[in-house]
Amino acid sequence: MDIIVLKPKVTAKELRHIVRKLESMGFKANISKGTERTVIGVIGDTSKITEDESNAFASMAGVETIHRIIQPFKLASRDFKSGDTVFRVGRQTIGGRKIQVIAGPCAVENLPTLLTIAREVKKAGASFIRGGAFKPRTSPYSFQGLGEEGLKYLAEARRETGLPVVTEVMDPRDIDVVLKYADVIQVGARNMQNFRLLQAIGAHDKPIVLKRGLSATIKDLLMAAEYIMAQGNNRIMLCERGIRTFETATRNTLDLNAVPVLKKLSHLPVIVDPSHGAGQWNLVAPMAKAAVAAGADGLIIEVHSRPEEALSDGEQSLKPEKFKTLMKELKAVARAVGRTL
Amino acid sequence: MDIIVLKPKVTAKELRHIVRKLESMGFKANISKGTERTVIGVIGDTSKITEDESNAFASMAGVETIHRIIQPFKLASRDFKSGDTVFRVGRQTIGGRKIQVIAGPCAVENLPTLLTIAREVKKAGASFIRGGAFKPRTSPYSFQGLGEEGLKYLAEARRETGLPVVTEVMDPRDIDVVLKYADVIQVGARNMQNFRLLQAIGAHDKPIVLKRGLSATIKDLLMAAEYIMAQGNNRIMLCERGIRTFETATRNTLDLNAVPVLKKLSHLPVIVDPSHGAGQWNLVAPMAKAAVAAGADGLIIEVHSRPEEALSDGEQSLKPEKFKTLMKELKAVARAVGRTL
Amino acid sequence: MDIIVLKPKVTAKELRHIVRKLESMGFKANISKGTERTVIGVIGDTSKITEDESNAFASMAGVETIHRIIQPFKLASRDFKSGDTVFRVGRQTIGGRKIQVIAGPCAVENLPTLLTIAREVKKAGASFIRGGAFKPRTSPYSFQGLGEEGLKYLAEARRETGLPVVTEVMDPRDIDVVLKYADVIQVGARNMQNFRLLQAIGAHDKPIVLKRGLSATIKDLLMAAEYIMAQGNNRIMLCERGIRTFETATRNTLDLNAVPVLKKLSHLPVIVDPSHGAGQWNLVAPMAKAAVAAGADGLIIEVHSRPEEALSDGEQSLKPEKFKTLMKELKAVARAVGRTL
Amino acid sequence: MDIIVLKPKVTAKELRHIVRKLESMGFKANISKGTERTVIGVIGDTSKITEDESNAFASMAGVETIHRIIQPFKLASRDFKSGDTVFRVGRQTIGGRKIQVIAGPCAVENLPTLLTIAREVKKAGASFIRGGAFKPRTSPYSFQGLGEEGLKYLAEARRETGLPVVTEVMDPRDIDVVLKYADVIQVGARNMQNFRLLQAIGAHDKPIVLKRGLSATIKDLLMAAEYIMAQGNNRIMLCERGIRTFETATRNTLDLNAVPVLKKLSHLPVIVDPSHGAGQWNLVAPMAKAAVAAGADGLIIEVHSRPEEALSDGEQSLKPEKFKTLMKELKAVARAVGRTL
Repeated sequence: MDIIVLKPKVTAKELRHIVRKLESMGFKANISKGTERTVIGVIGDTSKITEDESNAFASMAGVETIHRIIQPFKLASRDFKSGDTVFRVGRQTIGGRKIQVIAGPCAVENLPTLLTIAREVKKAGASFIRGGAFKPRTSPYSFQGLGEEGLKYLAEARRETGLPVVTEVMDPRDIDVVLKYADVIQVGARNMQNFRLLQAIGAHDKPIVLKRGLSATIKDLLMAAEYIMAQGNNRIMLCERGIRTFETATRNTLDLNAVPVLKKLSHLPVIVDPSHGAGQWNLVAPMAKAAVAAGADGLIIEVHSRPEEALSDGEQSLKPEKFKTLMKELKAVARAVGRTL
Repeated sequence: MDIIVLKPKVTAKELRHIVRKLESMGFKANISKGTERTVIGVIGDTSKITEDESNAFASMAGVETIHRIIQPFKLASRDFKSGDTVFRVGRQTIGGRKIQVIAGPCAVENLPTLLTIAREVKKAGASFIRGGAFKPRTSPYSFQGLGEEGLKYLAEARRETGLPVVTEVMDPRDIDVVLKYADVIQVGARNMQNFRLLQAIGAHDKPIVLKRGLSATIKDLLMAAEYIMAQGNNRIMLCERGIRTFETATRNTLDLNAVPVLKKLSHLPVIVDPSHGAGQWNLVAPMAKAAVAAGADGLIIEVHSRPEEALSDGEQSLKPEKFKTLMKELKAVARAVGRTL
Repeated sequence: MDIIVLKPKVTAKELRHIVRKLESMGFKANISKGTERTVIGVIGDTSKITEDESNAFASMAGVETIHRIIQPFKLASRDFKSGDTVFRVGRQTIGGRKIQVIAGPCAVENLPTLLTIAREVKKAGASFIRGGAFKPRTSPYSFQGLGEEGLKYLAEARRETGLPVVTEVMDPRDIDVVLKYADVIQVGARNMQNFRLLQAIGAHDKPIVLKRGLSATIKDLLMAAEYIMAQGNNRIMLCERGIRTFETATRNTLDLNAVPVLKKLSHLPVIVDPSHGAGQWNLVAPMAKAAVAAGADGLIIEVHSRPEEALSDGEQSLKPEKFKTLMKELKAVARAVGRTL
Repeated sequence: MDIIVLKPKVTAKELRHIVRKLESMGFKANISKGTERTVIGVIGDTSKITEDESNAFASMAGVETIHRIIQPFKLASRDFKSGDTVFRVGRQTIGGRKIQVIAGPCAVENLPTLLTIAREVKKAGASFIRGGAFKPRTSPYSFQGLGEEGLKYLAEARRETGLPVVTEVMDPRDIDVVLKYADVIQVGARNMQNFRLLQAIGAHDKPIVLKRGLSATIKDLLMAAEYIMAQGNNRIMLCERGIRTFETATRNTLDLNAVPVLKKLSHLPVIVDPSHGAGQWNLVAPMAKAAVAAGADGLIIEVHSRPEEALSDGEQSLKPEKFKTLMKELKAVARAVGRTL
């Protein structure tokens, strides 16, 4: 038993009674009020609930029916919530008809460069500015990010352009400082199974971009989302950004199959990062268009005014003029699949 | 030295002289007459040519310049031929502005079913009918195809609908019988490095669909094309159909990155098979649209009037009505990227 | 129903009767006489046999019991034959206590070099000489092997050293000529799913080395063996030779897990090719020792007297003196796991 | 310039001078005193050092020569330190002739079970006890470990058996509590690129088991070690534990190639975890033997007295009697390759 569907006219007292019974058994209740029905997600190891116990719940006052979710992820599952999850960040709506574009440099390097890029991507139609202040780098000797200084620059870019800020957090100890400046928190691919970090950000209500790990299956990604949701935060964008395969012609293999598969298995919005997925700037435009055609709800695109001087990932960053052209092309593809941009 | 670019006014005698010299050194000459220049591709292990020998060619009458191709594939390379390869099959043009759709059942099962499907896909706008008469199956106990009988049914479907026939050959010993009936020969993923088969079909001038092997890199695919082209046949469609990765939610991981990468490295047309690439019928539509958005020149789509009864790959076949809907959607995406369908 | 176990005292007439009934239903009977029981393997698509038909067989005279094999491979399965398959090639026994070492150059290049190598590997204790006369090469411009001339050199090496010859066949059209010279036929990794080649060699009784494809699962490898066995030939050595993964530090990832997994699932002998599996000569010795420790029944090791001049795979070939040292080390490891070499 | 080799008779003053110059340029100096030479590793982004600056160092008093390390990892590289790194934990020597066996349950579940297992593995010859108190689990609803309570049980097991304790840390915020109880800290596969965790444990001098990530290349693993070493801690055991591939017959693909490749590229000791690498208890023994034959310096083996009741990874745990048998077999293989156990 994973879901308890309540009767339309369930009373507050009945609801309280059910929740208390769940809690007395060591579970948490995730209450989701839909337009027609209220549903309780049972949070915890439900495989231990006996059939007798299930039946006892089924016959409680206010309960219409109980369900079992076969997938190991529950709150993230379409079985738990059949309609798409839609949420707002500032004036933008994630998961709706409009495809959201998050653009900006890989790393925040200095204020003037960031402001230049922010103005350019805003002008081209992006709805979010991104940039890393804490950077996970393969080498300890590479640029590791500006830390809080970088976050301040991002806030300054928001003040100038009105674009909400997306930035990564790598360490539970940095969450407080990141929360001070960011509108959306990103969990990077290398931290997708940093379960303590997931739990820590799940305890806040800030929207999250959760990137798929390099060797994470689609199921693993949904289980990572479940870690966050089990703490109460369900404002998550799942992000396909390429997986590791034997192919060496591209940095990663962008797995666009994941877009329709995730949309089928889960109610959460799905976005795509073609910059990391392909790893070369001249592949970004075709793959961004493909992502939109495949049904993505958003894109993350690296833009840099001087890619050749970027402190990281320059080779996969678009120049502002290329980004502008791409945005126009994307609008046409979005329209072709019944979306806006 | 891999390419000899000739002077605009090269004489037949000079050309003959150059070719003879190449042949005397154990090479073959692939002569390609463009609108402005004639170019000779030097076929063979050119790494053995010394610098002195190169210089001797460079100073021969009629020679303008000589080039070295860095990639291991030569005839398949954009360095050898910068313009797109475009060729005709019947009334259809492959590699041009129009995106070609090859549709039909995985295997030819019987004449009435094939004719039903052929009429439906024709009506929906497909330009080729496909179907396997020789089937590579993982199990020796599975249906292996109808053989020549199946080829006859395909020819009958062409007679009825006018659609040219695409069908697979698995064995050099079957080439003659397949050539009798097919308009386009398919080399399947499992035979992509069956080099003797590649050489055997390269000796004919029938157009070819060359499918990427399950663990073939993009470079491997181009080297397989080179095997065919070295025999004289360059009417090849490269086909991305999914690679093997750790992901188990889909049958294969359709690598759409391969589309822009192949278009950049090679002049050959590139098509995509989303049916095998994803392996589930409900993923075919989003991935087909994504393929077109990524720049594919064509699609191979499995269509079956009764997928649940198909002798192979039923779970990834579209019903005719779904295919019809998809064709409409594809038209919109094609238009958005400046193509027709 | 896949296996019919006969009563100890089954008569020839009863047996004939059962076989005929199977044949009348479109199946073939593979009769395997063990020391205590005779068993019939039912060859064909047994999933179509109804329960009533199964029961009818179970009650026939001479039948003790019938079994269903859950794996898709049957003749190759331990469920079909619980004891190890052991067979002889010349004076050597494959699949017994002795670990067999097949050594020699990747390709046969010329007679003197081959004879030098053959004498050296014989002296060091190898029991088979290997060498390719037909070579599958990624590039059409690379050395493709000497063809029949190479086979003649191999026969000459056998005449001189007494070592039986292992060599590859790539094309059904070459089987007759290869059979004339070879003692063991090798099917290369790229042809593991060349089903027509498998069927063609399965119709002969020559022992076979079947190499795992670069992206073949263990189940795929056993299904390929099943293709051969369904034609009547069960003298097969399964060969692990590395799979394709994201790791680029080695040519392939030698999957030694496959050794115990194959031994558990199948009764066929399992050998390992560390030369291709690792792709660098200095990794061959540790991986060869690891393969023996993991339970392999044999090894294929590339040896070349002048690796730096080899026409293919020189970088993974051992020099004779290194091979000699390795053979001594292997003897110690073999002894440690209760085997000889 | 990455390494400064000093003259045998360098003075303290000269050394100080060199170090100060490095620091003034923003680098750190890692001083390694060998038996014959003292060597300075230059820590930081050395790619920015100009040739003139290099030459200036080369001509400083006390400097014999300067070197460039081509690999991106430096302190972890054999170019930096040619001899094997050997270090002691309690009475055990890691990286020497003796192969160390770390054994115990996946998770610490309760004190009596842990003590039973600890006594059994001690008796069989293991030299370390392992067990997880903080468990990274794919599902938030699975058992997450006992936390500090589990660490106390491990300390109790050490008190009883004398075996040093190996246990995992998942979160920088837990390092202090883990340091209180553990003799060796483990970084799990999912945290191999949790760079902040690596830096945090690198700042302490506790020995570390660093597990290879599921999709980490060998180079990635060495870069992760570099993160730790750049903080000053070089007592690291690199641990191969299986990578993610397309093969589904085993939980992971244990990449034993990694053992000789790591030993060649790095001076750090290399151990193998066949329990996670294969994921099935009956594959543990052959793969453990293979690891020793391939040159591993140690093994991590999961042992549980009642695997069927284990709260995690029961299917890959050995029972004590199987472990005892395996230890005997391992001794024979170790002897065959010139090691002890």
